[in-house]
Amino acid sequence: MTTTAFLGLGAMGFPMAAHLARRASAQGGRALVWNRTAARAADHAARHGSEAVDLGAAAQADVLLTCLPTSAEVDEVLAALQPHLRPGTVWVDCTSGHPEAAARQRALLAEVGVTFLDAPVSGGTNGAQAGTLTVMVGGDEAALRRVEGELAFAGKVVHVGGSGTGFAVKAVNNALLAVNLWAAGEGLAVLGRAGVDLGAALNVINASSGRSNASENLIGQRVLSREFPATFALGLLAKDAGIAAELTATVKGSAPVLAQVAALMRGAAGVVGPEADHTAALKLIEAMNGLELR
Amino acid sequence: MTTTAFLGLGAMGFPMAAHLARRASAQGGRALVWNRTAARAADHAARHGSEAVDLGAAAQADVLLTCLPTSAEVDEVLAALQPHLRPGTVWVDCTSGHPEAAARQRALLAEVGVTFLDAPVSGGTNGAQAGTLTVMVGGDEAALRRVEGELAFAGKVVHVGGSGTGFAVKAVNNALLAVNLWAAGEGLAVLGRAGVDLGAALNVINASSGRSNASENLIGQRVLSREFPATFALGLLAKDAGIAAELTATVKGSAPVLAQVAALMRGAAGVVGPEADHTAALKLIEAMNGLELR
Amino acid sequence: MTTTAFLGLGAMGFPMAAHLARRASAQGGRALVWNRTAARAADHAARHGSEAVDLGAAAQADVLLTCLPTSAEVDEVLAALQPHLRPGTVWVDCTSGHPEAAARQRALLAEVGVTFLDAPVSGGTNGAQAGTLTVMVGGDEAALRRVEGELAFAGKVVHVGGSGTGFAVKAVNNALLAVNLWAAGEGLAVLGRAGVDLGAALNVINASSGRSNASENLIGQRVLSREFPATFALGLLAKDAGIAAELTATVKGSAPVLAQVAALMRGAAGVVGPEADHTAALKLIEAMNGLELR
Amino acid sequence: MTTTAFLGLGAMGFPMAAHLARRASAQGGRALVWNRTAARAADHAARHGSEAVDLGAAAQADVLLTCLPTSAEVDEVLAALQPHLRPGTVWVDCTSGHPEAAARQRALLAEVGVTFLDAPVSGGTNGAQAGTLTVMVGGDEAALRRVEGELAFAGKVVHVGGSGTGFAVKAVNNALLAVNLWAAGEGLAVLGRAGVDLGAALNVINASSGRSNASENLIGQRVLSREFPATFALGLLAKDAGIAAELTATVKGSAPVLAQVAALMRGAAGVVGPEADHTAALKLIEAMNGLELR
Repeated sequence: MTTTAFLGLGAMGFPMAAHLARRASAQGGRALVWNRTAARAADHAARHGSEAVDLGAAAQADVLLTCLPTSAEVDEVLAALQPHLRPGTVWVDCTSGHPEAAARQRALLAEVGVTFLDAPVSGGTNGAQAGTLTVMVGGDEAALRRVEGELAFAGKVVHVGGSGTGFAVKAVNNALLAVNLWAAGEGLAVLGRAGVDLGAALNVINASSGRSNASENLIGQRVLSREFPATFALGLLAKDAGIAAELTATVKGSAPVLAQVAALMRGAAGVVGPEADHTAALKLIEAMNGLELR
Repeated sequence: MTTTAFLGLGAMGFPMAAHLARRASAQGGRALVWNRTAARAADHAARHGSEAVDLGAAAQADVLLTCLPTSAEVDEVLAALQPHLRPGTVWVDCTSGHPEAAARQRALLAEVGVTFLDAPVSGGTNGAQAGTLTVMVGGDEAALRRVEGELAFAGKVVHVGGSGTGFAVKAVNNALLAVNLWAAGEGLAVLGRAGVDLGAALNVINASSGRSNASENLIGQRVLSREFPATFALGLLAKDAGIAAELTATVKGSAPVLAQVAALMRGAAGVVGPEADHTAALKLIEAMNGLELR
Repeated sequence: MTTTAFLGLGAMGFPMAAHLARRASAQGGRALVWNRTAARAADHAARHGSEAVDLGAAAQADVLLTCLPTSAEVDEVLAALQPHLRPGTVWVDCTSGHPEAAARQRALLAEVGVTFLDAPVSGGTNGAQAGTLTVMVGGDEAALRRVEGELAFAGKVVHVGGSGTGFAVKAVNNALLAVNLWAAGEGLAVLGRAGVDLGAALNVINASSGRSNASENLIGQRVLSREFPATFALGLLAKDAGIAAELTATVKGSAPVLAQVAALMRGAAGVVGPEADHTAALKLIEAMNGLELR
Repeated sequence: MTTTAFLGLGAMGFPMAAHLARRASAQGGRALVWNRTAARAADHAARHGSEAVDLGAAAQADVLLTCLPTSAEVDEVLAALQPHLRPGTVWVDCTSGHPEAAARQRALLAEVGVTFLDAPVSGGTNGAQAGTLTVMVGGDEAALRRVEGELAFAGKVVHVGGSGTGFAVKAVNNALLAVNLWAAGEGLAVLGRAGVDLGAALNVINASSGRSNASENLIGQRVLSREFPATFALGLLAKDAGIAAELTATVKGSAPVLAQVAALMRGAAGVVGPEADHTAALKLIEAMNGLELR
């Protein structure tokens, strides 16, 4: 009988933790939840049958899961939990964190016998609700195999390498999202200036070799529709693209396009505002081209 | 009873013209074919029941179709055909041509009563064989509707705007292919330097938001496999990305990422050679990062 | 005794033509001037002793000089002059024109026995007034040597190659100005965010290896001063950087940084307005970085 | 009577320390020198009248100066010196170091009463020999004023802000050098493909608005001459451009051109080798354009 504790009930974490509660109910385990704003944890307990606890109680879980905005918040929670942790716990951090943070966090936790896995997820809020998230995991593979069954929110769990590599893959994935999204915006802006019907052009591209997740699932629904629903903040995508750029520097690699787009995303966040949906980055392209993508 | 003539029996044109021959056989029409190297046309006739003809005979067709390497070859064929053309013919150019060439070609043909449609295709040799190509058409929509039924190689036909816009959409689509492909290469190179298993990383990306046609259908089969099968030449992709860059200049648009990648593709063609498969562009990324993507 | 005719009395042309008038007065020749707005030519005659004439009279000059916004205006003037031109005239076009326009213009004029030299200038309004402009000349070198003495506004005249190469060098020079200016703006924006005193930083850079004409003569006087005096329009610099990008495509070269900056300049012109001084392009950098360069 | 100690007698440090020895001889002070390879320090003492010492003795100086390849070597020397340091010493680090290293180093030294100033220099080996280096200093301004007179190798000393800002300005300066150099190479490559005489083109650019220190002092002497004398290694310039890129990330700034060029410099170092002169980066441009710049 396993006890899990899920810390961070945001747009992603809330439905992810619901899957843990459902599994605990079915398997006879316990699903603890914690959130900075306690009312949200209480709401989770009421809706999904989890147990809202304080950090001291959460630290007693067999499997600790975190899903926070950045590695900085994980550092804070880790500092608060550290006195309460017990050897044998596995900490699964689903934050889109920083590879260098993973090294530091893994080492700190190893001192108290806790295994740290960096395990960011992909699939968005839809995937979180459906329980079909892809989890990319860096760190000790044997520890992953012990807890893998508890990740009830996952459709796919892939071990990608040593500590920090989960964060690295996630950062690169999101950098590719940023590139594919931005480039699609540029392409449509040029076509718009050339008098092309953008809906027809997108239709063609999505049936052709230039298609991407961004062109298929974001441009039509969010940009051409002028809706820009704020589900994944531009500031967070700019952060992730920036992590990929820093990783490139750390490994002394050369990635001119990822670097350029990371800069443009940061610039777009400056112009459009970091709270806007990530697709609103294309409003900078619109300003640079003097037209609206519609 | 319609007579079609297909000019240019290359890797794409050969199977495309076979669909025309099949349709003519079923519908009672004629399917003429012509190729610079006449033996290839004779071979097509033998295999698919088309009629190999000279340019003068081809010019008498109701629907003329061309599928040549660049607009320059179309100009040459057009000059040779012009004395023989007759009013009412519709010319469907499936070349990945240049929007400025379309304007010139459309005007020249209008003088002899021939309607020019720029109608490049997407889907590769697989799509050409299966008859599922996407055709993006610029020019007179009524003329398109008259001949649309003859495009037996098409799975989808989309009218995207006035003359030249078909070429424009194709150039932008291929520029997006170039960007998505190059960026995926950069991302994997950085991950490779960080010690990540690239097969696992690609597996994750293809289940996540950074995926694209390039990551799903090219990187694994052609790059990580080290096969680089030469189906679509790097020099042609560099040409197409260059057309998108020139189009951007023509419409006074701003597309910094498309511009950068067009330059990198041209540079890669310089380093790797224009005859290599387009995915071999990533060998320049490998040289810049001191590793092989495998 | 030579007759010159100077067409286009803008911010550059007006003082350039004054040098021709001064030379004619000293040497016994004639200095004709023409301007689209005739009053400006009359003003030039009154101030500098030139002769304001119509296009028909200007066409009779031994040396015809043009200094117009773009090659399009040169085409218009050429069409108007063509019936009046006489063999033996040398046409020196000081416009920052397009290499492809030079080919066309040279061929047209050769039909009537007129030699076309593309001869753009560098040095700005200060250099025009001081008579110290650098002239970069493409075309027939013997013709250049015959008329070189008449270029009284020049401090330096350099023959750089065949027809169109003068325009090519000018476009690349201005593209380098664009790159050096933009990069200096980026560098200072980053330093500004890091809390560095920008005046001190500029002082250091201008005594160090990162200095450029842009850092030495533009950033301090025009940007940090917040004056942005409109002497060279952003739209024209974007046009020149665009010519360099198109030239790159024409020669199938690879210039990723020039391409990116041409796109950013065009984008900045879209955001800031094409009439602003070229240094105001850095206001886009400011928006992207959330700070003012001061 | 002041005692200085200069640690790191490389291509820059050797002549810099000679100025300290000359000053000590004139003023009655002592000039200690240390080098990892002791023979080089002995040689310095023999040639310039300095005193070759071990690290323990060097730690007793009033002013400690370091000039090492990267901040990592400074960290090593600092660790070795720390037990021997005494309060009141000012440490002037002339390394082209990392802003984040400055924060760490300043804090460590403050614990033992030593003031750390980040004080990188610009001017190259020529400036080091002539004693005309520009020194850009971050950290406590009062401490700088106390020791400024000892910096006998300087032609100009500028305080640019708090701790780390000296390194930041140096990194940005070198990033600008990288951009200006690379862009000049691209421009000449395009002109070369267009058939322009590159010597003439460079002559024009250096008299025009596109000129930079790179075009004036590097392209002609080192690139067009095909000499590429190895005075400043490409790997070090790539490192500096990378520091500027990381600084951009740290301050959440947006610098797309600096980012792109940092990536291209790293890529060029991968292709050409990090030990080559920094101007040899342009050999990657040559490969991408299929021509030699000469």
